Amino acid sequence: MEAFTFYNPTRVISGVGMIRNIGKELKNDGVKSCLMVAGGGSIKENGVYNQVLESLREHQVEFHEIWGVQPNPTLEKVLEIVSLAKEKQVDAILAVGGGSVIDSAKTAAAGVFLQNPWSAFIGKEKIDKALPLYTVLTLSATGSEMNGSAVITNSGTKQKFGISSTRLYPRLSIIDPAVQCSLPFKQTANGAIDSMAHILEYYFADDKAISTLAVSDALLKTIVDMTDRLKLNPGDLLARGNLAWCASLALNGLTSVGLKGGDWACHQIEHAFSALHPDISHGEGLGVIFPAWIEYMSEKDHTRFLRWSKNTWGEENVARGVHRFREKIENWGLATSLRDLGIKETELTEIVRLIMVTPRIGAVSKFNSNDVESLLMLAY
Amino acid sequence: MEAFTFYNPTRVISGVGMIRNIGKELKNDGVKSCLMVAGGGSIKENGVYNQVLESLREHQVEFHEIWGVQPNPTLEKVLEIVSLAKEKQVDAILAVGGGSVIDSAKTAAAGVFLQNPWSAFIGKEKIDKALPLYTVLTLSATGSEMNGSAVITNSGTKQKFGISSTRLYPRLSIIDPAVQCSLPFKQTANGAIDSMAHILEYYFADDKAISTLAVSDALLKTIVDMTDRLKLNPGDLLARGNLAWCASLALNGLTSVGLKGGDWACHQIEHAFSALHPDISHGEGLGVIFPAWIEYMSEKDHTRFLRWSKNTWGEENVARGVHRFREKIENWGLATSLRDLGIKETELTEIVRLIMVTPRIGAVSKFNSNDVESLLMLAY
Repeated sequence: MEAFTFYNPTRVISGVGMIRNIGKELKNDGVKSCLMVAGGGSIKENGVYNQVLESLREHQVEFHEIWGVQPNPTLEKVLEIVSLAKEKQVDAILAVGGGSVIDSAKTAAAGVFLQNPWSAFIGKEKIDKALPLYTVLTLSATGSEMNGSAVITNSGTKQKFGISSTRLYPRLSIIDPAVQCSLPFKQTANGAIDSMAHILEYYFADDKAISTLAVSDALLKTIVDMTDRLKLNPGDLLARGNLAWCASLALNGLTSVGLKGGDWACHQIEHAFSALHPDISHGEGLGVIFPAWIEYMSEKDHTRFLRWSKNTWGEENVARGVHRFREKIENWGLATSLRDLGIKETELTEIVRLIMVTPRIGAVSKFNSNDVESLLMLAY
Repeated sequence: MEAFTFYNPTRVISGVGMIRNIGKELKNDGVKSCLMVAGGGSIKENGVYNQVLESLREHQVEFHEIWGVQPNPTLEKVLEIVSLAKEKQVDAILAVGGGSVIDSAKTAAAGVFLQNPWSAFIGKEKIDKALPLYTVLTLSATGSEMNGSAVITNSGTKQKFGISSTRLYPRLSIIDPAVQCSLPFKQTANGAIDSMAHILEYYFADDKAISTLAVSDALLKTIVDMTDRLKLNPGDLLARGNLAWCASLALNGLTSVGLKGGDWACHQIEHAFSALHPDISHGEGLGVIFPAWIEYMSEKDHTRFLRWSKNTWGEENVARGVHRFREKIENWGLATSLRDLGIKETELTEIVRLIMVTPRIGAVSKFNSNDVESLLMLAY
């Protein structure tokens, strides 16, 4: 197994009714005032907002609010959050929402100490300080609640880039699976695909990380099983809780141990889709590109994909495994082609241009622009 | 899935040659002087001591040394460590060795701030402070390198008790799998059994922690496979690295998620064996008692043990699974009965007395003294 470092200081509290602890936890950590970051208002409908508010009030934690973070969150919104955090001189940021809200809050937590938050995304500034970040998760998908990474879109340049720093791990994340019972199934399924993609980005990098791959097999299989259960019964709390935990583990460092940083071509490709079409959900885009990537890659290197095919889908043949993967995605009601996603064939050139910021992408796949073009055609 | 909290702030650096980073890491954390805690001298033979020394010297970290921690480490030794740490006014404790060394160092790290370290084991003092602890692991078994627990024997009272605190997580643990290549196979196998037992103590508590059980299945299977490989080739670095990581994960909180704290009757029983016979290795004692416990328990509740039997041993019948477990232990050259361990039948009454500090033991098994007696007879 390759040398590795594992570090993840985020505390996770998971369970029905746990949100009411947020005020006490902030108070125990000495937080006197925080800025709550939220999305479009669904937390008012599902009761999360009230639970958070009551808890903050009960424990006399002063709070300010900023709303309106969108899926595929933008730099513009981050700048607003930074500005308000500075103005109100808060001690901490509290993200209440899904991955977009957390990523925005995370970037802002570092951003208050940066000249310009975007400069951290393009390697011009280093993150060595951040406000403490707390999260109340409402949609399990990105794993952002338990890692030090964030992805933000710069609408001006149409770049969707990521940052990563040990300073950005949430201090505490609260996950109440009951909150996710009211989600439309499509969002649950998108989240499941996103989690699977996180595992798969690492999975194919090296067969020597035997222990990690065994754990990844376990998570992949559980994600599929729990999502199937939730399709039948969205209120299945057992499946919600287990799926949520799998999603956190999928990108908390566990599935990358000994796997040299993974590949990440599929994420890079998908980011171009949603940079161009902000309405495309990240998970759905990944569900289109990942099966195609495996199909394309396995033509040259069939054995690399056999373990996955066998252990996730029970198929001894990779083509059959890919078929089963696509069938599942379709069964969950998600797109299985770029056409389904609403991407026009005439846009492919622009997409390739957005993707190829370096001559080759993907640590394992090492795709040049011809490969990416062929892959996009395969996925079309 | 039951509500849970997951928190594990230990940073792990794993890989061949990584020990030479210890000096730099201590220096980066602002440690100016440390007390190195070690065992019987094997680290002088396998080169670990020299690597640590060179690194500390290179980075001008002042150090003191205390040697002689034994397997089934004692309170007496802990008191010596505490006394030296106070005398030398060190900033940190550096454990270089296996679980016994780490547990002693860990207890001492808290002990310098306690009236009497043993009082923390019997619930009379609370741990709310500890010196920062660093470890260089030389034997993967107890998982102490990545958790906040320690087990110490009070030779005076013949009590082998544990403590647990979030203050006791090592700040950093370095694991160089190459160091373990010179271990006698029996020690490797004892470590593997100990790791499996940690997983199993939680495993049978609740079938609703679907994600955790899937991960545990993966770890159990990998531990068996890697140990088999190491029996054939002790220098198999890939197997060493993967087994080491499984051992850390086995008791770092991951395998307990949603499992209500597990059972722990087998550990409690084994602790009595080694409190009475300090020469009995913890892992070997567990290898005797755990199959017997499953056998005894499954007579009343067969279905609870089916998953384990199937997923670890490929057997649809629990009795067959237990048989395969014992066969494996025997194949690894370890004891499979109390008689093999050198325990006399006349000692069983004393052992039962030592075990039954409460009217019942084991959160799942809830054994009274009659159950324990029957179990010991079954294991004899």
